[in-house]
Amino acid sequence: MTFSPNYVNSYAHFGIHETMLKDSVRTHTFRTAILDNPHLFRDKVVLDVGCGTGILSCFAARAGAARVYAVDCSHIVDQTRLIVRKNGLQDVITVIESRVEHLQLPEAVDIIVSEWMGYFLLDEFMLPSVLHARDNWLKPGGLMFPNKASVWLCGCDDAELRAEKLDFWHDVCGVDMSCMKSFSISEPAIEIVPDNHVTTTIHNVLSLDLQTCTTADLRFISPFQLRALRPNKLQAVLGYFCVSFTHGREPLQLNTGPMCDPTHWKQTIFFLDDTIPMDNNELLTGVIAVQQNKNNERDLDIALEYKFNGNMAIRCNLLRYRLR
Amino acid sequence: MTFSPNYVNSYAHFGIHETMLKDSVRTHTFRTAILDNPHLFRDKVVLDVGCGTGILSCFAARAGAARVYAVDCSHIVDQTRLIVRKNGLQDVITVIESRVEHLQLPEAVDIIVSEWMGYFLLDEFMLPSVLHARDNWLKPGGLMFPNKASVWLCGCDDAELRAEKLDFWHDVCGVDMSCMKSFSISEPAIEIVPDNHVTTTIHNVLSLDLQTCTTADLRFISPFQLRALRPNKLQAVLGYFCVSFTHGREPLQLNTGPMCDPTHWKQTIFFLDDTIPMDNNELLTGVIAVQQNKNNERDLDIALEYKFNGNMAIRCNLLRYRLR
Repeated sequence: MTFSPNYVNSYAHFGIHETMLKDSVRTHTFRTAILDNPHLFRDKVVLDVGCGTGILSCFAARAGAARVYAVDCSHIVDQTRLIVRKNGLQDVITVIESRVEHLQLPEAVDIIVSEWMGYFLLDEFMLPSVLHARDNWLKPGGLMFPNKASVWLCGCDDAELRAEKLDFWHDVCGVDMSCMKSFSISEPAIEIVPDNHVTTTIHNVLSLDLQTCTTADLRFISPFQLRALRPNKLQAVLGYFCVSFTHGREPLQLNTGPMCDPTHWKQTIFFLDDTIPMDNNELLTGVIAVQQNKNNERDLDIALEYKFNGNMAIRCNLLRYRLR
Repeated sequence: MTFSPNYVNSYAHFGIHETMLKDSVRTHTFRTAILDNPHLFRDKVVLDVGCGTGILSCFAARAGAARVYAVDCSHIVDQTRLIVRKNGLQDVITVIESRVEHLQLPEAVDIIVSEWMGYFLLDEFMLPSVLHARDNWLKPGGLMFPNKASVWLCGCDDAELRAEKLDFWHDVCGVDMSCMKSFSISEPAIEIVPDNHVTTTIHNVLSLDLQTCTTADLRFISPFQLRALRPNKLQAVLGYFCVSFTHGREPLQLNTGPMCDPTHWKQTIFFLDDTIPMDNNELLTGVIAVQQNKNNERDLDIALEYKFNGNMAIRCNLLRYRLR
């Protein structure tokens, strides 16, 4: 009996692709954005940045693109080539294994399609690679799919989630591990929050025009204020993102907020140190700061500071987070 | 505003500890094995290998141990020390940050407790470290907790799971990705299988006496035969493990099979190339071979060969797997 030599690399990627492709909100939104707009894709040259299994390239080819360059730096491209051939699109789609920063194309492109979003929009920091591709390969007047992105915050009172993630540590099979709570507060949870737990207004803390924004825009400090929509016990600030496709006949949005169908990005939950009882119309104000981690370029540093000035005394807290 | 420097290491470990501690089957079984046997622990010296948050050490201390050495090579030990103190056990438990292979203790120990099991028992290959500790620090006649381990196979006909993991690739939003099926076959799925999908007898392919076994025993080739308990369409061979505590007043088992309460180890599912229709009492015979991966010592290579000689022609397949 023999053993196979090298599945480890493939496996890591494989699991990710399965998760992403099974996120039907994600896949169907990109499909609609591309296939419903053949007038934009017909006879055009398209670049798919971080193509993975090549599904967006297949959509672009079926929407009438003349040529599609599908680029990914992982070994998944061996599978992508098989998929392209299996679907009879090998005359349209060229699969290229390359870091996008080292990419060499024979021509500039009319459209860039890319699904680059991570948790809280920016985690994994793939967007700079997409912007690099845009600056180097997109023709003047060329189109980005998606072309807008935004990040939003709101307050939530999911006591059950707080109990599960934080209070849990007080009694673990009879052992007091409450010091572990600080980890659960320091690191945001990635969970789906039902929309009935959203108890405040939502606040936009980042808006990107992907046609023009630069990498510098991904480092930001933004104030926010969340107004209670009803009396509630605020447990956490919740973050999520939207991306939009507005070049097509009908503008289309992929919204990962709690009021929309769940996606594999779920929501990003920043637990407060303590529960805050809020009356209707009371305000939680704060500042969020986000930057790329200096040691690991795929990591995101998030600092969140908030103040509550309602029936309670003024509170001021500094929390520090980093996503995986 | 400032950002925190170094949560990444902590985070990786933190998430794992949360998952493990929330596995109540796991934690309660160890708790019962230790706390129900104070006659074994009273005034004894205990070593906890890979202590993590130190929960097994706390159990041992509460069961009356004179001294407990809690050893882990990860930064989690900073938290472990806080937990030990919070629970007033600092006079009994000494927390040591060390690889167990480099461990220096002031004395030999009477008992080794350790939760070292990975997927399919051996994944992550922590057991050799536990055996190293046993050979170097356990007194003659000392006790291992757990002291037995075994691996089992059975057949299953979970068509829904096969559809979700394999057939899915035939039509991903209109794109044929059937070549990706080979990944789903090459790499076992880790999923919980309801016991009504088990359609064959179970077969023991590995039995370890942890008091005496050696690292060489972890490399094994074992024949198996699975007899259909009813007519069924066999989709997969399913693997799982048990560990036992038999030194106590009542023998205790932590069984991760589909007939028991689910654990975070779930079951390990090896899909067959094709579904096999089996009649009652028909046999699937095969051989499983398992070894540590040569390139990555934490990885497990698994080869599974099977033959079906019933109403169908003789089949022979060679599958190759590697767990994460």
